[in-house]
Amino acid sequence: MNKDGSVGVVKTKYFTFAEAPDELVLESERTLGPVTLAYETYGTLNGDKTNAILVAHALSGDAHAAGFYEGDTTPGWWDVMIGPGKALDTERYFVICSNVIGGCKGSTGPSSLNPRTGKPYGFDFPVITITDMVEAQRHLVDHLGIEKLLCVTGGSMGGMQALQWVASYGERVRSAIPIATALKHSPQQIAFDEVVRQSIMADPAWRQGEYYEYGQPEKGLAVARMIGHITFMSDQSMEEKFSRNLRNGQYNFDFAADFEVEGYLRNRGDNFVRRFDANSYLYITKAMDYFDLSGGRLIPNGKVLSTRFLVVSFKSDWLYPSYQSQEIVRVLKMKQADATYCELPSTYGHDAFLLEVEEQTTLIQHFLDKTFNGYHVVSSNDI
Amino acid sequence: MNKDGSVGVVKTKYFTFAEAPDELVLESERTLGPVTLAYETYGTLNGDKTNAILVAHALSGDAHAAGFYEGDTTPGWWDVMIGPGKALDTERYFVICSNVIGGCKGSTGPSSLNPRTGKPYGFDFPVITITDMVEAQRHLVDHLGIEKLLCVTGGSMGGMQALQWVASYGERVRSAIPIATALKHSPQQIAFDEVVRQSIMADPAWRQGEYYEYGQPEKGLAVARMIGHITFMSDQSMEEKFSRNLRNGQYNFDFAADFEVEGYLRNRGDNFVRRFDANSYLYITKAMDYFDLSGGRLIPNGKVLSTRFLVVSFKSDWLYPSYQSQEIVRVLKMKQADATYCELPSTYGHDAFLLEVEEQTTLIQHFLDKTFNGYHVVSSNDI
Repeated sequence: MNKDGSVGVVKTKYFTFAEAPDELVLESERTLGPVTLAYETYGTLNGDKTNAILVAHALSGDAHAAGFYEGDTTPGWWDVMIGPGKALDTERYFVICSNVIGGCKGSTGPSSLNPRTGKPYGFDFPVITITDMVEAQRHLVDHLGIEKLLCVTGGSMGGMQALQWVASYGERVRSAIPIATALKHSPQQIAFDEVVRQSIMADPAWRQGEYYEYGQPEKGLAVARMIGHITFMSDQSMEEKFSRNLRNGQYNFDFAADFEVEGYLRNRGDNFVRRFDANSYLYITKAMDYFDLSGGRLIPNGKVLSTRFLVVSFKSDWLYPSYQSQEIVRVLKMKQADATYCELPSTYGHDAFLLEVEEQTTLIQHFLDKTFNGYHVVSSNDI
Repeated sequence: MNKDGSVGVVKTKYFTFAEAPDELVLESERTLGPVTLAYETYGTLNGDKTNAILVAHALSGDAHAAGFYEGDTTPGWWDVMIGPGKALDTERYFVICSNVIGGCKGSTGPSSLNPRTGKPYGFDFPVITITDMVEAQRHLVDHLGIEKLLCVTGGSMGGMQALQWVASYGERVRSAIPIATALKHSPQQIAFDEVVRQSIMADPAWRQGEYYEYGQPEKGLAVARMIGHITFMSDQSMEEKFSRNLRNGQYNFDFAADFEVEGYLRNRGDNFVRRFDANSYLYITKAMDYFDLSGGRLIPNGKVLSTRFLVVSFKSDWLYPSYQSQEIVRVLKMKQADATYCELPSTYGHDAFLLEVEEQTTLIQHFLDKTFNGYHVVSSNDI
């Protein structure tokens, strides 16, 4: 056992499928192929392949959820939750995480080469949906020889994917843990995404999406990310972190960054343009806005699922407020699903799913324990 | 009496002061002069000049608070509250509203001609503060021969000016009605303003503020305004107004505006660039961020004011949440001030101060009645 709770050094793997003429048919009825998924796995798949957990990432995430790349000091984005003895215990479970299609971290997206032209897709890339992302993941899960996932989990857009797995392939999902997410975006959430998109598209360097030989629309993308960061934090967490602290101890009386919060946002914006593709930001926010499992689309009428659910929200999350998680639970209960809801008392806002480790860990460990044990009992009965 | 409650056709007036060498000395220690204020008045100043109410406008407001310009069909921005029989009853009171310095609606601001160069100030315009805005208004009030204002009122940044009047010239303010405002911006409010500024300054058409001969940085300013509109509304009011309604009844699967809320925001952004100067948006948001009357700066220790206060907030306003109004009341009560607080149950968010007419009217009418009557009793005793 790895004593420090880390999965150690990891490598990203790649899986390519949907070669012509068997291209992926998207929800838009357009096709995409070949499709490559970048993915990582942690832990070991057991003999009867019943211990696989699929982790789905949020807007700007990637396949690198845990461990370290060779020579790197920053771990994957959910390393606090994935590893030996952690919430997703890699001593017991086999954890998979793949970059979504439309992304820019190794999976096929607008910055990938279009085989028809030999140049990046740019705005020729088809609009993709959460359903399409899940469909691509399903190909990967098939490829790994896994018939039924022990769990699908993720926060924010990752939670949407967990819910979409239930809607698309409920019988292949033993349990789901949607965290800080929603059945559908409210108009306020759509509005924030739209402003983010307009900010990118307003930058002349965006060039209608065909900027790859010239460089990113850096300024528009930086502003877009700044907007995002405000919505990821809470009023309270910003007060705790920045208050009205001044960078130089006094007002500058100019338009340099006077306040620490301004410096922080500018910094986050500037860093982001070095690691994320502007077009991917457009495509992925659009996929989130299109997502809508309300109105019986999560579990169709008459269908009975044995999937277990743990729905988690955070008190200070105003981007994905608790009422949206409660709505998921209400819909599940109406379909007689086995669903538990827990609102955790964090001040971190939407970022809490990345930061609130302790209570999240306890909740998830207990839930997975029961699911995994129950699963084996059921499996034996089935045989 | 005007039966329809309108003050009728109005004209903007102009008052110029602070000619060199008596320029206005700003909080930054820079000077500005000459200074012109665009202003309007409604109703009649009484003989003893005790019925004057100063209305201060918000971020994108102007001097045109009530009535109609000749041939125009859209009334001033607070016409619902100002007029015969309305909250600020022009049959009884003399109402004044002036455009703030730094603005672009007739008062001296970055788009005004710099007498030293004969060209627009642009980014040579000095950074101004709420204190400076109030100082300019004080010159106007002197010019109108008014020693003591019956009331200073306004919503949002207008409320900040009302509070600053108390801090700067408390003995000249019989009463104040700060609405949907704060003693100081929180880091979240600063953050939204900073993103708005970055959006404008990211537009290459902004040209470091020297764009006047080329035209506005339209795209950056439009995005800035879109961000603003999200914060002015509430989650609930957006749900009621737009829900997830689609403009074409189905997803476009492209980046045109799919949802009504997207079309609304784009429209608001596009309209705004036709009526507001980008540099003014920068200067005025900076003034709001600098505003800070916490820590004994509203009423200094030992000072006793006879000013009466009505503090109003709106339940769904998350940009200026009620806790900020409650903080104003707490500070006032600690200084033994005569302060009343009321939170009104609106779903309109921050926009409520412009839209919630009925209850706001009743509250303000009663408060002004008592203030005006009490004022006259005190005045008679004084004689």
